[in-house]
Amino acid sequence: MKKYTTLILAGLVIVLAAVLTGVLVFMWNQPPQERAIQTLVEIAQMEPDSSKWGINFPNQYNTFQKTETNDIDTTYGGSSQFSWLERDPRQVILFAGYPFSKDYNDDRGHANALEDVQNTGRLNLDLDDPKHTPGTCYSCKSSNNPALWNEMGMAEFDKVSFVELGGRIEESIGCANCHEAGTMRLIVTNPALQEALKVQGKDWTIFTRQEMRTVVCANCHVEYYFKGDGKYLTFPWANGTDISQIIEYYEQAGFKDWEYPEALTSMLKAQHPEYEFFTAGSTHYNAGVSCADCHMPYVRDGAAKYSTHDVHSPLLNPEQACGQCHTDSEYVVRRVNLIQEQVASTKQNTEDAIIDAITAIKLAAAKPSADQELLNQARNLHRKAQFMWDFVSAENSTGFHNPEYALKILADSTNLARQAQMLAAQSVNDMSLLQAGTYYETLEVTPTPAP
Amino acid sequence: MKKYTTLILAGLVIVLAAVLTGVLVFMWNQPPQERAIQTLVEIAQMEPDSSKWGINFPNQYNTFQKTETNDIDTTYGGSSQFSWLERDPRQVILFAGYPFSKDYNDDRGHANALEDVQNTGRLNLDLDDPKHTPGTCYSCKSSNNPALWNEMGMAEFDKVSFVELGGRIEESIGCANCHEAGTMRLIVTNPALQEALKVQGKDWTIFTRQEMRTVVCANCHVEYYFKGDGKYLTFPWANGTDISQIIEYYEQAGFKDWEYPEALTSMLKAQHPEYEFFTAGSTHYNAGVSCADCHMPYVRDGAAKYSTHDVHSPLLNPEQACGQCHTDSEYVVRRVNLIQEQVASTKQNTEDAIIDAITAIKLAAAKPSADQELLNQARNLHRKAQFMWDFVSAENSTGFHNPEYALKILADSTNLARQAQMLAAQSVNDMSLLQAGTYYETLEVTPTPAP
Repeated sequence: MKKYTTLILAGLVIVLAAVLTGVLVFMWNQPPQERAIQTLVEIAQMEPDSSKWGINFPNQYNTFQKTETNDIDTTYGGSSQFSWLERDPRQVILFAGYPFSKDYNDDRGHANALEDVQNTGRLNLDLDDPKHTPGTCYSCKSSNNPALWNEMGMAEFDKVSFVELGGRIEESIGCANCHEAGTMRLIVTNPALQEALKVQGKDWTIFTRQEMRTVVCANCHVEYYFKGDGKYLTFPWANGTDISQIIEYYEQAGFKDWEYPEALTSMLKAQHPEYEFFTAGSTHYNAGVSCADCHMPYVRDGAAKYSTHDVHSPLLNPEQACGQCHTDSEYVVRRVNLIQEQVASTKQNTEDAIIDAITAIKLAAAKPSADQELLNQARNLHRKAQFMWDFVSAENSTGFHNPEYALKILADSTNLARQAQMLAAQSVNDMSLLQAGTYYETLEVTPTPAP
Repeated sequence: MKKYTTLILAGLVIVLAAVLTGVLVFMWNQPPQERAIQTLVEIAQMEPDSSKWGINFPNQYNTFQKTETNDIDTTYGGSSQFSWLERDPRQVILFAGYPFSKDYNDDRGHANALEDVQNTGRLNLDLDDPKHTPGTCYSCKSSNNPALWNEMGMAEFDKVSFVELGGRIEESIGCANCHEAGTMRLIVTNPALQEALKVQGKDWTIFTRQEMRTVVCANCHVEYYFKGDGKYLTFPWANGTDISQIIEYYEQAGFKDWEYPEALTSMLKAQHPEYEFFTAGSTHYNAGVSCADCHMPYVRDGAAKYSTHDVHSPLLNPEQACGQCHTDSEYVVRRVNLIQEQVASTKQNTEDAIIDAITAIKLAAAKPSADQELLNQARNLHRKAQFMWDFVSAENSTGFHNPEYALKILADSTNLARQAQMLAAQSVNDMSLLQAGTYYETLEVTPTPAP
């Protein structure tokens, strides 16, 4: 009996030991994190070099690489580097006194962002000049940023000069700007976005994946400004992201980007507020469509289905981009063309009205006898009208991301610009300031709409 | 052999006679016209009494009858008879000197059209007054019209006074306004539409049924004017149906509806240009949707499927109206509401700009020393700006039929109105004319947007 007991116990021990070994071997073979994706090589968190991520995700990386060579234009935008100042010389006047009047090219693809910011004529690299370009200008241009922000803090990143910081920036926009290594989940990497969401009581870590497919674009595609002497990157969203709330924010902050020469208006330059524009009640946003749905549609390579990272205008691949939801992409393209045509021509009329206001304010400001209260009212309307126009103009969709919003803003901007012109004339009691279109003769190129 | 021959021939004769008899019996049993519909009673061509058509088409007729009692409003429009002048007192100023400033109620359903035109405060029934109301005003109000146009000719119909013609008009809008008896096909009955299409080289008799489901609405829902002394009903479409082409037409014709008191501007009143507005590249029209698809959607009564004739805003039955194409009618209604809100608020800003122009022109016109050339330029811009605004305002959709078109027109109208104000001030060299919003104090009711 005893003999059998021993045998049974010994058998149990062997079985238990074998099971334990099996479990340990299984655990040893698990990836380090619960949600991790099976990969070929391990990617360090915030790895700036996109080619390393590309080993694990060749389809995504290969399509991303195409953003370097794509240079196809659409009717009103696209991926070449055409000059806005040549295409619409009114903008030379509208941005007078600000670097955008010297050099204002359309943006190329993500892979060229670093090269293009380093080559733009808008930079002031003279470190002896207190107005030299700050590090902040690298904020949206490099996948080195997440690691640098983590290491230096954003305040220091922004304070350092563009020249100095440049020594540590080697990569253009890349994987690390939107993805967490390991899990590959979409994340907010720009501290300015993190802070702007927090001010509004929003926590992006509990957003859905579909929400993140829009929010990660807001790492860069937003209106922002450089706050204070430290040129601290800030999104003006404390009151909300509607244009009226953004204007209210800038009024409260008393911020200006530059002073318009001779007119002495405190000006604001709008950046590329695609996120604010698209989310302001556009039909696509309200229907649950994300930025990535149209700009990074799902495509196939053999059996593999993946989201293309060759980000560009959906007008260049409407079957893939629009065709995910719309059955007739030819119809859709005609529709987009018509909307952009309507917005572009309305935008040009608004430009004429603003330039008339500028002309009038300059003439009034030159007269010491001008009623300063009326003149300042004119300047305030000029400031608002031009920011509103620029909000539509600098937004990269010629209004398509939210057509009614674009056209309503342009209508209101035109109204304010004309009222600014009238106030300027009143301030010096000079009727000649009410002339329209006198600036045409100053243009070197005849202003015509885009082809 | 001969015997067989006879038998065979006799057999053939019998067979042929039988077949012929059968064919004749079949033909005898066919309805009088190839495309005719099997009906219970025969309807005379152009039968004015819709209840007679109703015997054959009870579902269509019963739903048509509902247009008499429906009085439900939407946010910005609807089927009650609310006063536009009370809701938006700016319009009292905008239409000063014209009957619309005395009485301007929203339209009720088709079955009330006759009663409402006879009771409107806009009529002048004094036959001794050379400006008495002409028969033309019955053009869109009665199913007696097709027979009367056929009998009298439109020129005579229009020339007769409203009072005289009234003796022959008994029915409100009805079946005969859009249908041919017998075939029930959709037809153009208004000679003015027939002529306007012909001028453009269009032949409606070869339009598809789906095209006719929009074109029959243009029997009435269009911009029109009363041409010459005979008050001949005319659609200003000779150059095309775009608003720019319509304005060009009126400029060429030198037409005015009335002269604005004190300002002496030659004014144009826009009617209800739903057809021109909807067909000017709207997304629904371009996608092949007809007026009837949304305003007369297919519904069911037991096994019968028919197009409801209870024509009203689709906002009152979005599941039926929008749900034929859109899966989420709640989403669609939110979308419509947002668009109408954007258009309504932009429209109000445009009204402010136009009234400022009117105020300035009136003040300038009162001064004999005014530069008449500048003043006339101001009047011409006032004329255009107000017609453009009215084209959006009188159109029954608060912009929804073509949102981008509405907002673009309002933007351009505002621009012209402000320029008119400036020209008026220049004409008398008086800065005080550049004030904005001075008319507010003249309003009895505080102007506020619709609920």
